[in-house]
Amino acid sequence: MTAVSDVRTTIGALRREVCGLHAELTRYQLVVWTAGNVSARVPGQDLLVIKPSGVSYDDLTPENMVVCDLEGRVVDGEHAPSSDTEAQAYVYRHLPHVGGVVHTHSTYATAWAARAEPVPCVLTMGADEFGGEIPVGPFAVIGDDSIGRGIVETLRDSRSPAVLMQNHGVFSIGKDARSAVKAAVMCEDVARTVHVARQLGQPVPIPQDRVDQLFDRYQNVYGQPG
Amino acid sequence: MTAVSDVRTTIGALRREVCGLHAELTRYQLVVWTAGNVSARVPGQDLLVIKPSGVSYDDLTPENMVVCDLEGRVVDGEHAPSSDTEAQAYVYRHLPHVGGVVHTHSTYATAWAARAEPVPCVLTMGADEFGGEIPVGPFAVIGDDSIGRGIVETLRDSRSPAVLMQNHGVFSIGKDARSAVKAAVMCEDVARTVHVARQLGQPVPIPQDRVDQLFDRYQNVYGQPG
Amino acid sequence: MTAVSDVRTTIGALRREVCGLHAELTRYQLVVWTAGNVSARVPGQDLLVIKPSGVSYDDLTPENMVVCDLEGRVVDGEHAPSSDTEAQAYVYRHLPHVGGVVHTHSTYATAWAARAEPVPCVLTMGADEFGGEIPVGPFAVIGDDSIGRGIVETLRDSRSPAVLMQNHGVFSIGKDARSAVKAAVMCEDVARTVHVARQLGQPVPIPQDRVDQLFDRYQNVYGQPG
Amino acid sequence: MTAVSDVRTTIGALRREVCGLHAELTRYQLVVWTAGNVSARVPGQDLLVIKPSGVSYDDLTPENMVVCDLEGRVVDGEHAPSSDTEAQAYVYRHLPHVGGVVHTHSTYATAWAARAEPVPCVLTMGADEFGGEIPVGPFAVIGDDSIGRGIVETLRDSRSPAVLMQNHGVFSIGKDARSAVKAAVMCEDVARTVHVARQLGQPVPIPQDRVDQLFDRYQNVYGQPG
Repeated sequence: MTAVSDVRTTIGALRREVCGLHAELTRYQLVVWTAGNVSARVPGQDLLVIKPSGVSYDDLTPENMVVCDLEGRVVDGEHAPSSDTEAQAYVYRHLPHVGGVVHTHSTYATAWAARAEPVPCVLTMGADEFGGEIPVGPFAVIGDDSIGRGIVETLRDSRSPAVLMQNHGVFSIGKDARSAVKAAVMCEDVARTVHVARQLGQPVPIPQDRVDQLFDRYQNVYGQPG
Repeated sequence: MTAVSDVRTTIGALRREVCGLHAELTRYQLVVWTAGNVSARVPGQDLLVIKPSGVSYDDLTPENMVVCDLEGRVVDGEHAPSSDTEAQAYVYRHLPHVGGVVHTHSTYATAWAARAEPVPCVLTMGADEFGGEIPVGPFAVIGDDSIGRGIVETLRDSRSPAVLMQNHGVFSIGKDARSAVKAAVMCEDVARTVHVARQLGQPVPIPQDRVDQLFDRYQNVYGQPG
Repeated sequence: MTAVSDVRTTIGALRREVCGLHAELTRYQLVVWTAGNVSARVPGQDLLVIKPSGVSYDDLTPENMVVCDLEGRVVDGEHAPSSDTEAQAYVYRHLPHVGGVVHTHSTYATAWAARAEPVPCVLTMGADEFGGEIPVGPFAVIGDDSIGRGIVETLRDSRSPAVLMQNHGVFSIGKDARSAVKAAVMCEDVARTVHVARQLGQPVPIPQDRVDQLFDRYQNVYGQPG
Repeated sequence: MTAVSDVRTTIGALRREVCGLHAELTRYQLVVWTAGNVSARVPGQDLLVIKPSGVSYDDLTPENMVVCDLEGRVVDGEHAPSSDTEAQAYVYRHLPHVGGVVHTHSTYATAWAARAEPVPCVLTMGADEFGGEIPVGPFAVIGDDSIGRGIVETLRDSRSPAVLMQNHGVFSIGKDARSAVKAAVMCEDVARTVHVARQLGQPVPIPQDRVDQLFDRYQNVYGQPG
């Protein structure tokens, strides 16, 4: 098998994976209509695979996923790519360890984002997954690099795999698309639970050394052995 | 094919479309029992297609949709049309660019309507879809033109495709029935997220020029090329 | 066909109807586990058909519904009837126009019940369905007639088909089981929307004459002609 | 059939039961992603059956459940067991009447846990199921016996089958796995309803003698005869 056919095989697998992962966004009600998307980096290539723009989740197929270069230009696909492609391409260009990106406007996380308020780390689940608070990124509008830059500058030095973009919604990252989807799911769950806790009073803080201990263990021990 | 059979074909297609779109109202939990409906204008005819009154969403078929003239009188159908038919017919008579109308009592939007308070534009999704706040229409009861008139007077000079009728619920419009359904879905999503944001403080405002920029781009660039 | 076989046929049909209507309680998330039930009066007989006690909704069949007399004693059935049977039998004995009764602990309605606070009539849907506020009944515990008496005394002179039993949950009534289920669904929807409205301020009141106008029209005009 | 094959048969049945009960956690939205689990004691053996760690609910099968001893060491299974196994093993070691344990981070219960605030008994459902308030256990992190000890010390002298572990989530117990799942479902339902009630004021207290009366009756009379 040639290197070219290897890349084709990889892209075919990523088309199926990216397509299928959108079912997690609808399952956990992180998205309505067409307002959210998943992308994956093609390993070793300056390429990404992403949802087509404005297509219903019911109508997604591996074939209508769009392959773009890391400037966001379409390389393969019949459809226009997600309007978030440029922002996600910026993330892949500047954070080489990132293999997947997800964007949602999930309700509770976006509500914190509307107030430009980070979600405090008052749950063991928050410590496990985010290693501290879920941070807020700047207000930025589509049309230039400002969303991508805001994501990268906020997450580059954070343990959190998710950022609440002010007045906008969530972008999450991971070593692959599935990890980024998990971070989006956990972000909404933590944002919702802390919101509910705060409605009737103040949550008890978790000391920083315990947050560190939980984060380290969860990142290194949880789940099945690699 | 004669002009008459063309109209029959169009109406048949609209019966299927209007019937099917009710599944979006239940999917996004915008309605309970039989309390919400979709209608479509028959292009080029003074006719509309609408849900029958008081029939369960499970029992809707293309055949039991009702065809009415733009005064709300039944032209074709075994069932009585939705009790909102007169209001929707009024909208079609007075707003010729409208091809679809949706009515719901979705929870969060109706909660703003109960307080007669517009949903402020503090999310990029609100700027994209509504171009500003989601406005409130007057209190009006069924029985004369007052609901239809309230919808038209509120939306005629607004960029918003949805109005919160005071103490009542949502009416949304679109170039076709699908667009009106999308507006109803987005209205509830924005109403819910802003509600949740407001529960714990004040959202950050979005400057008007940014709202305009987002609205213009979304209306002209988003989705697949026509 | 003899009168006896007529009654058997009617009871068979009611077993299927009562069994099937529990799917509406789960669809609208009015119940968890086994905590809610539907019953129907057998017309012209001093009998009712009700859910068996503590049986999962997934496991309900027409055959495991229980037939009781109006003192709550089992007449036909392999299972013990719902622990709410005595309360519902009391309702059938004292309100002859009632053909169906439903009991739930649906979240928002029960929250108003926990505060012993009626749901005010600030939505057209509330005026349509309940003709005013949704009233609160007394605190009463299982073991004597006090729940049934509380329901009857609260609803006898009310236009509302639902009562919020203090610290407990909802009982709703109707001319048949389906109408009682509808009232339970609408009760939760109205309780939730008014709750959400109240979280951020005060809803606008609806004048009493408008409540009356809406109620009269809805009871007499809505839906398909009988 | 030998005693050894009896144990094998029992373990096979428990693998199916524990696997299947996870569907109740997802049905009632008590868990997201992989964050929650069910276990069962193997009667008469120092063994338990539990979910594998980090495996999606969609991918659970009777075969991938893990059998551990009551120190949490794997006895039979291809996968690493849930990271909560040590805590649950501690519970089985110290509470011999417990046959099932469930862990979730369900939203409303965890919100009370984040504030270290017990859920007060202001609903008849709370009196029935928990016999009083739902208590709070200590803050404890994974890595030693502190979670298990916190659960046992909180529940040993309580009528409640559920504990809110501070900043963490819910652990519930029962005579078997199904009962523990029911307690987890009821815990979230009660936590949510009381939360909603408290958002707009103070619930009416239930006198202690009525709580006792409800609890005694529910534990001894409800459901089908054994």
